[in-house]
Amino acid sequence: MSKPATPVSPPLTDELDIVIPTIRNLDFLEMWRPFFQPYHLIIVQDGDPTKTIKVPEGFDYELYNRNDINRILGPKASCISFKDSACRCFGFLVSKKKYIFTIDDDCFVAKDPSGKEINALAQHIQNLLAPSTPLFFNTLYDPFREGADFVRGYPFSMREGVPTAVSHGLWLNIPDYDAPTQLVKPRERNTRYVDAVMTIPKGTLFPMCGMNLGFNRELIGPAMYFGLMGDGQPIGRYDDMWAGWCTKVITDHLGLGVKTGLPYIWHSKASNPFVNLKKEYKGIYWQEDIIPFFQSVSLSKESTTVQKCYIELSKMVKEKLGPIDPYFQKLADAMVTWIEAWDEINSPTASASAPATAAVGKKK
Amino acid sequence: MSKPATPVSPPLTDELDIVIPTIRNLDFLEMWRPFFQPYHLIIVQDGDPTKTIKVPEGFDYELYNRNDINRILGPKASCISFKDSACRCFGFLVSKKKYIFTIDDDCFVAKDPSGKEINALAQHIQNLLAPSTPLFFNTLYDPFREGADFVRGYPFSMREGVPTAVSHGLWLNIPDYDAPTQLVKPRERNTRYVDAVMTIPKGTLFPMCGMNLGFNRELIGPAMYFGLMGDGQPIGRYDDMWAGWCTKVITDHLGLGVKTGLPYIWHSKASNPFVNLKKEYKGIYWQEDIIPFFQSVSLSKESTTVQKCYIELSKMVKEKLGPIDPYFQKLADAMVTWIEAWDEINSPTASASAPATAAVGKKK
Repeated sequence: MSKPATPVSPPLTDELDIVIPTIRNLDFLEMWRPFFQPYHLIIVQDGDPTKTIKVPEGFDYELYNRNDINRILGPKASCISFKDSACRCFGFLVSKKKYIFTIDDDCFVAKDPSGKEINALAQHIQNLLAPSTPLFFNTLYDPFREGADFVRGYPFSMREGVPTAVSHGLWLNIPDYDAPTQLVKPRERNTRYVDAVMTIPKGTLFPMCGMNLGFNRELIGPAMYFGLMGDGQPIGRYDDMWAGWCTKVITDHLGLGVKTGLPYIWHSKASNPFVNLKKEYKGIYWQEDIIPFFQSVSLSKESTTVQKCYIELSKMVKEKLGPIDPYFQKLADAMVTWIEAWDEINSPTASASAPATAAVGKKK
Repeated sequence: MSKPATPVSPPLTDELDIVIPTIRNLDFLEMWRPFFQPYHLIIVQDGDPTKTIKVPEGFDYELYNRNDINRILGPKASCISFKDSACRCFGFLVSKKKYIFTIDDDCFVAKDPSGKEINALAQHIQNLLAPSTPLFFNTLYDPFREGADFVRGYPFSMREGVPTAVSHGLWLNIPDYDAPTQLVKPRERNTRYVDAVMTIPKGTLFPMCGMNLGFNRELIGPAMYFGLMGDGQPIGRYDDMWAGWCTKVITDHLGLGVKTGLPYIWHSKASNPFVNLKKEYKGIYWQEDIIPFFQSVSLSKESTTVQKCYIELSKMVKEKLGPIDPYFQKLADAMVTWIEAWDEINSPTASASAPATAAVGKKK
């Protein structure tokens, strides 16, 4: 992929932060410069805090390493994963913006079938600003898109839609496969550009990938906890899945929407399938119980906020998944800690000062 | 649209009938000749039985008019609509094949973005032969398509999928809008070719359009009843919607799948929005109650066949929708009559002789 020719343009909104879980490859930021430079970046360094990520000139950013996380959260830092991209959710916690876009550092600018570079951020913003339609399926996909509408037979009372909480983007080139599929189909590439955005219906779970993800932090932020993964934990590569399952049952309960489809990014390289298999194998096994659990979750009408839903969910996790493995008891406790940390950092009094003083570097 | 250059090729399956509710425009058959000629056509003439549809040479067909329907079904002919394309379901009843493709006579061969003519029939067969995945959402669309698979986080126990009962195709050019949308957006055309097939999740209703529809008659045939529309009835243009709602709750109950997306046909002209408004207005009003009704339907575990499901559903329709308007009581009775007719025509003893003797014309 060559450098994009697109000039840097003004931000489409002042209300968005870009959260990146570490940056191992500085070409990544150069490639995205025309699209990312107008926005504020929150970089959460997932490994050794003594190593320094050199952010190129011109970017407005905050960078947090493990020492910062420990200092800011104190004992509550235990809920943030170490040596795993799951640490990205710390960035969601300290952001003060309405919208988050999060992306992995091996994801580059994709091109649409006409050869034009795709502004993924712009499409996510568009997805998040238009309503979702989780209550009934529209066969012509997103009815709010230009040139589309609700088809014959779509109930008029449902056409207002519901607020969109999540925009889940997809990947050209390397598809987001699990280790067994990577091993079986090492050469498979995703070359199909599907020109659609759609709402995932109410009551339907989906595998949410954190590589290319936008969400409305005000609507769903506290549910975007990426769990306990990586260093000292029995599984990896289920951080985004966990967040997705929790998010979907909560958006369904609160009458919010989740969209998937456009925008595409270019996923440049597959991670090592053997390493992935080691990280995944317990998750692959456990998910056979986790999915039926989430499919059966019914939150009480007292759970009227994301935080309340999440605490109720943590209790169910402890009760129903705890017997499978002590890991889930620890995870349920971490879910509670996460909400406590969220509320602490996002309380009206904390909001003014915390993030700025916590950042390692902030340059413009 | 010019005539297609594609030569006629052998049928992809001997197990498919094409059902067409009347043909007002013989260009229709000429346009589709390369694709349709290898198959058997069942034409159900929806209006005046004294008028004769001249089918061009080379097609293998049966043609039924109202007199034929009355003669074959006797008093049970009351369940088949007159002067409305809903009469097409009579063709489903008398077919002896496993698969049905049904299409309207204002639908022509569409082209894909490369300019190639789309063999809609071939895509429907492909959709019907591959499993569906209604239990969990796959973000890369149909996992059984070439170049695609299940993404990370998709439970392995659900990857076998379920048998596909319905393949719902879409429309380029004139979208399938209701009369109010037609009136508000008279110039809107669907130009977006979305290169995707997907399963409609379990528990989610959708607006099924009969213009470009394939299904497995053995799996779901008796649910494909297009209701009471047209002459002497208070509504029109809800025939396919009715069939779709009934079909979806029954496929969900029986563990079958419904796909939507490809193939596209070229919908050549919009029907008159003023006429449509007259046909639709009660349906637009009633569907605000009908949709919640179907969303709440829960069939009993004793309903183990499509027929049993449909009879149980007819009782619920009478009880829950009957109070809205006497029309629904009549419709509930017609649903029962339809199943009686289906079983009569499709009994092992009837299957050998009935359709052949009933056809007005059969030529090769």
